[in-house]
Formats: sequence, structure tokens, C-alpha cells
Amino acid sequence: MSDFRQRALDYHELPKPGKISVELSTSAATVDDLALAYSPGVAEPVREIAADPNAAYRYTAKGNMVAVISNGTAILGLGNLGPLASKPVMEGKALLFKRFAGLDSIDIEVKHRTTEEFINTVASIADTFGGINLEDIKAPECFEIEKELIKRCKVPVFHDDQHGTAIVTAAGMLNALEIQGKDIRDIKVVCLGAGAAAVACMELLIKCGAQREKIYMLDRQGIIHTRRKTLTEHKALFANNTDKRTLEDAMDGADVFVGVSGPDLLPPEALALMAPNPIVFACSNPDPEIKPELAHEVRNDLIMATGRSDYPNQVNNVLCFPFIFRGALDVRASQINDEMKVAAVEAIRSVSKMPVPEEVLKASNSESLSFGKDYIIPKPMDPRLCKTIASAVAKAAIDSGVAQLNELPSDYE
Amino acid sequence: MSDFRQRALDYHELPKPGKISVELSTSAATVDDLALAYSPGVAEPVREIAADPNAAYRYTAKGNMVAVISNGTAILGLGNLGPLASKPVMEGKALLFKRFAGLDSIDIEVKHRTTEEFINTVASIADTFGGINLEDIKAPECFEIEKELIKRCKVPVFHDDQHGTAIVTAAGMLNALEIQGKDIRDIKVVCLGAGAAAVACMELLIKCGAQREKIYMLDRQGIIHTRRKTLTEHKALFANNTDKRTLEDAMDGADVFVGVSGPDLLPPEALALMAPNPIVFACSNPDPEIKPELAHEVRNDLIMATGRSDYPNQVNNVLCFPFIFRGALDVRASQINDEMKVAAVEAIRSVSKMPVPEEVLKASNSESLSFGKDYIIPKPMDPRLCKTIASAVAKAAIDSGVAQLNELPSDYE
Repeated sequence: MSDFRQRALDYHELPKPGKISVELSTSAATVDDLALAYSPGVAEPVREIAADPNAAYRYTAKGNMVAVISNGTAILGLGNLGPLASKPVMEGKALLFKRFAGLDSIDIEVKHRTTEEFINTVASIADTFGGINLEDIKAPECFEIEKELIKRCKVPVFHDDQHGTAIVTAAGMLNALEIQGKDIRDIKVVCLGAGAAAVACMELLIKCGAQREKIYMLDRQGIIHTRRKTLTEHKALFANNTDKRTLEDAMDGADVFVGVSGPDLLPPEALALMAPNPIVFACSNPDPEIKPELAHEVRNDLIMATGRSDYPNQVNNVLCFPFIFRGALDVRASQINDEMKVAAVEAIRSVSKMPVPEEVLKASNSESLSFGKDYIIPKPMDPRLCKTIASAVAKAAIDSGVAQLNELPSDYE
Repeated sequence: MSDFRQRALDYHELPKPGKISVELSTSAATVDDLALAYSPGVAEPVREIAADPNAAYRYTAKGNMVAVISNGTAILGLGNLGPLASKPVMEGKALLFKRFAGLDSIDIEVKHRTTEEFINTVASIADTFGGINLEDIKAPECFEIEKELIKRCKVPVFHDDQHGTAIVTAAGMLNALEIQGKDIRDIKVVCLGAGAAAVACMELLIKCGAQREKIYMLDRQGIIHTRRKTLTEHKALFANNTDKRTLEDAMDGADVFVGVSGPDLLPPEALALMAPNPIVFACSNPDPEIKPELAHEVRNDLIMATGRSDYPNQVNNVLCFPFIFRGALDVRASQINDEMKVAAVEAIRSVSKMPVPEEVLKASNSESLSFGKDYIIPKPMDPRLCKTIASAVAKAAIDSGVAQLNELPSDYE
């Protein structure tokens, strides 16, 4: 067994199994404490909540609690291994929510037969929490699941594999475009991969100014085009009226490549076809669509991002999901809408333009970092992310009318 | 607003809303930690669990995690106030699981239309946890819900309002019978109330030796008898072939009264009709079926228990549920069967017969406690409860063949 593999297993097993625990957030030492915490004292908050459901935010942990929910149908890059096998990932996500944003978070794995059953289950328990983070649910079911749950739940529902990835990608992309001197309204984009993350990334780039007809999305069969006989609803949104069919066709003169597909699927020859000063986001993990060393050999005018922490410019969802929920929950937003997503994009961009403090360099094992080709995306260990992103998201929620509280928490100032 | 009411609300609101939080049980300080906790390291335990579901006990928090689940249809004595209003109670239960047995516990409130929907929801998410504690679900639905979930879930499912109450009642009752010199096989029992707790209490007394035909159960209409035209399945189990109809008829010569009904429903005149050395468990909370002062005035040969902490002999579920789950989870029992319940009864009895240490006296605001009429049930603050009950339950699970692990944890010795 490899050393890393054994270390990863030990990490999960010791000092005790798993990564999260539930603790008391209040005193339960004395008989008197227990009379307040349980019978008879607990009847008082019960009555308050029965009279006004919003009192649940005042007297229970709901308002700071995020459920991380999966059915295990698309676990990391490992595929459909079932709900129970997804548990370490969901616990890991809960750990990240707490570690980065101070949110209490618990994982729930759902076994189901039909998509409808999954939706019903999550809708039934949603009120328990302040928000729902969906995770590792395969396409195309994830689209219907998210859409339906947003409709049925009073709390925000967010499919991180779609929107977390899209937000961090868009932030890095807008920075890269700025450095390469390209206008998002003019760029030709190639998106290799047509799953949940691909669709969400392209939709968000469009919201940021990209033009739908200049996007070429490819699945295993090549460019998605309007002559295809069967197309899922989401692929159809990206079907171009074109006679081009191959990756090379698409890459010819492209400004931007976004890969959310698989290892080594971008041949150097295709990269060579791109327009000057190209941008390549090769996000397949752990093995990108093209190795950074190889890509830089082919193009020295390149800006490149990957999903890996050991190369510059890591597209890492942890830059987004803890903080977008932090902001949403802090003003009791009923949903995470496009305005809040765009606010998160701009906030992430802004952090990458701030001078990087010593502690972040140290925590990131970096000697120096300053806004430029090798630093278009902030580092996860940057403590300024939380307040910057959460406050921007909270403000966008208020401005777009989905917040129940209309003031930012005082500690945002 | 009364002082206690305000204190109870403050307790729930401060220092932060609610009573539980989720914390990291492992280190997440460095980039290296995060590479183990999440991508890429987390893929290793995922693969292990995909290959063997039992690995979830090794690499996730499942094995120490209990879900407290309610639909809010029978909250405390307050009735059907809906799932959200039950949240403080369920969080309180989670607090007690942690406080008394070190179990991680999270509350889940379920909104549903039909009983079947509730069952489907809980069954869908059950594998997330090591066990399921059902709570505050009204009769008669609770019977079907528990029965069906036990059938469908691989982890133990336990409706505390039924069995927790029954186990503590049976422990106190067997002790009281011993002190009063009565044989459980001979006693005439009156049970006022025919809800979930009443049915479970009587069934467990029968398992401990009581005879079904000597039990008179009363609902709002009086004694449940075989001439009644409509009876739910569970009331039918206690329908006697008798011409007696009233509480007074039933109480005449009764050895034992168990009240799980409402305040002041046992008139002193009825108490006067009982056999010598009677036993009265007046468990309606906070106001018992008869006030202890009044009962002792009427009968000086009485042993009395209530649900209140400010009188001797409190029937308190916290004496059972944290520890029965502790024992069940420690040997990965697939269910909590009758053998385990009876083992819990005997273990609770045994603690009440041990000399009471100073710390317990102090924590219980008592000057002295020794086995006798005023001390038939241990105090919740007794630290010996956990090991004594959990080990007895775990052993019963092993002996009855429902344990997946066949050794007690070493710290039970």
C-alpha cells in the first residue's frame, strides 16, 4: 500500500473514526442546566416556534447549520459507488464548512430508487437546516433535483459541483482575461465536457458577458451541434449551428479552453491551434486534460489553471462554498440566486488582487504571490476570503430581495 | 414573563442559538491535512467502503452517530405542533446523548403528508447513522412507523417515548415490587392512558412476568374491554373480557397503578381502593395524575414515582436511551431487541442498589440515598449508569445474536 494511501486511511480512522463530531454549544453540567435544556424548559422555545417559525433561528442551531447531501452517484472522479461510499467525501465537506466558515455542517447520504424519491426525501427534511449543499450527484438528474428542490425548499439549495466550480472558474477566468487583455464579450470558448460542472461554468460565463454562440461544448461524441438527433435538455442549450465536429475544429483560434472531462484529453497539437495569449483551465482531477509542463512547452503565452494544489492557479471549490453559504445564512437568504453568485465571483477576484500576507504564503508553501499569470486565483488558506466573499454575497442577497434580514452582521465591518 | 420561562429562552438563545454544534474531530490546520481530509486523500476511504460497507464504521463517524428524528406530532405534552416546533426538543435529546453517553447525535425534523412518506424518508437516510432514535411521534402511527423502520433499516431503530419510558418504569416497578413484597406474576395492574408509552410499559411488564389478563388499561372512555366496537390494533391487545367499566372498578384491589395520562386524573378515593402496599407511578408531566403529598396522605403504605425531578423516584428516560444506544452501537447491534431491553431494566435496577457516592448526592441535591421506598430509581447524574447499562445491553445483543461485533469494548472492564 502506498504511503499516501495509508496516511489517508489512518487520517480517517484516528484518533477516532470519521472527521466530525457533535458537541454541546451550551452548558449541561447541572440538574438545573438540564431542566432548561430539556424538560420542562424546552417547552418554552417549542411554543415560540409553534407561534412563529422564524423563532427557530433564534432558539435552535438551524440558522448556522448546513446539510451536505448526496446519493453517491458521482463521487469525485470515481463514479456511482452508492450513498454510503460517499460518506467520507460528505464528512470532508462538512469539515471544510466548519474549518473555513464556522458553519455547523452534517452529512446525509440518501438511498433512493427514483429521482422523485430523492427529491421528496430532501424536501421532507430541509427545514431542519439553514441551507442544503448538494454534492456528487450525477448529471443529468442533478439539474432536475436542484431545480425542484429550490422550488420546494424555504432554505437555500446549492449544488456545489455545478455552481461552486462555476464561480471559482469564472473568478479565475475573468482575472486571466484581464491579464491577457481579452474582452469576455469577444472570446471564443471551448468547453471539453458536458456534465454538471461544464454546463454551470458556461452558464455563469454567459452571465458574466460571454456569448453563447461563441461557446463550443464537446462531449464524448465531439462538438454538440444542432443536427444531433438526441440531446438532453441541458446539452441542447449549448448546441451550435455549426459544421465543425472535432476538438481540433473547435480549438482553432479559440481564446479559452475549459476542461471538465478527463486526463490527457487535450492534445498539444490542439493547444497549438489556439489564438494568441490563450487561457487553459484543465480541471480534470487529479490528472488534468493536459500536463502544465507540456502545455507551457507548447505555448509560452499561456495562462493555465488546474484542479491541483501543487501547480499555480488551483480551481478549488473550497474558495466558494463555505463563504457563499456563510453570506446566505447570515442574512437568511431564501435562495442563492445569480446575483449572489456573481457577487461571489467578484469577491474572489478582489482577494487575488490584494497583497498577500506572510501567513498565507507560509500556509500555502509559497515564496511570493502577486496578481499575475501564476496567481489569478486566491489560496484556500487566505483568511480574508470568508469576510470578503460572505459580505459580498449577503449584500447581493439583500439588494436582490431574497434576504430575510436586511442588515449585514456587525462583524462584517 | 415568568423568570423560568425567560431563563429557558435565554438558555436556548445564548451564547449562540441552539444547543449543539458540529466540530472537527481531527486536525485540519495545514494544506497537507486538507489533502488527506478531502481531495485527493478522501478517495481512499471511499474505495474501501465501496468494497465493504462495514468500512464505514472504520473511516467515518457513522458508528458513533445517532439521529434523533421526529415529525412533531406529539411534542412533550404539548401535542401536534409540527416538525419545526419539535426542533428544540430533538436538539435537547441530542445534547443528552452526548452529555451522558458520549454519542454524537443530530436532530432531523421530517415534514410529511402520509405515514408512508415519513417511513420512506427515514429509511432513505438511515444508513448515514449508527442508530435512529424516534421521538415525539403520536400514536397509533408510531407503532406502524417503528415496526416498518425496524424491518427496513440495517441500524437499530428505537422509539424512546415507548421503550425508554417502559424500561425505566419497569426497572422502578420491579424494585418497588421487591420492596413491597409482591410477586410480579400475581399483581393486578391499572394503566391509565392507552397511548404509545402505556402500551410499551405494559408489554414490557408482561415480558418481565406480569399477566396480561390482570392488566386493566383505560382510555378516555374507561376500561378497554372486548365488547367495544372499534379498537385500534394496540388497544385490542389490552381489551379484557370484563363487565367493569370505570377507573374505580379497576382500582379496587389493584396492586399497581401506572398513569401516563394527564394531571389529577387519579382521585384520592380511587387510590384508597387499592390493595395493601400499593405502587403508584403517576408519570403525567409536569403535573402527575395525583400529587405526591395528597397520595401519601391517603396511603401511608405507598411507593410512589412521578416524572418530576423535585420528588423522589423520577421516571426519566435519560436513565435509559443514551446508554441503550451506547451499548447497541458499541457492538454494532442491528436492532434493539427485547433481550436488550430487559438487560437495560436489570442494569438500571442494579445501579439503584449500589451505594450512592458523594458526588451523585451533591449533583442530585440529595442528603442521602439508599435503596428503599424513596429511592427505587437511580439519579440521572450517576456516572455509573453508562458503563453498567451499556455493557449489559451490549452483552445481551451478543448473546441474542444481533451484534456484529462479538466482544465488548475493552473500556467496559
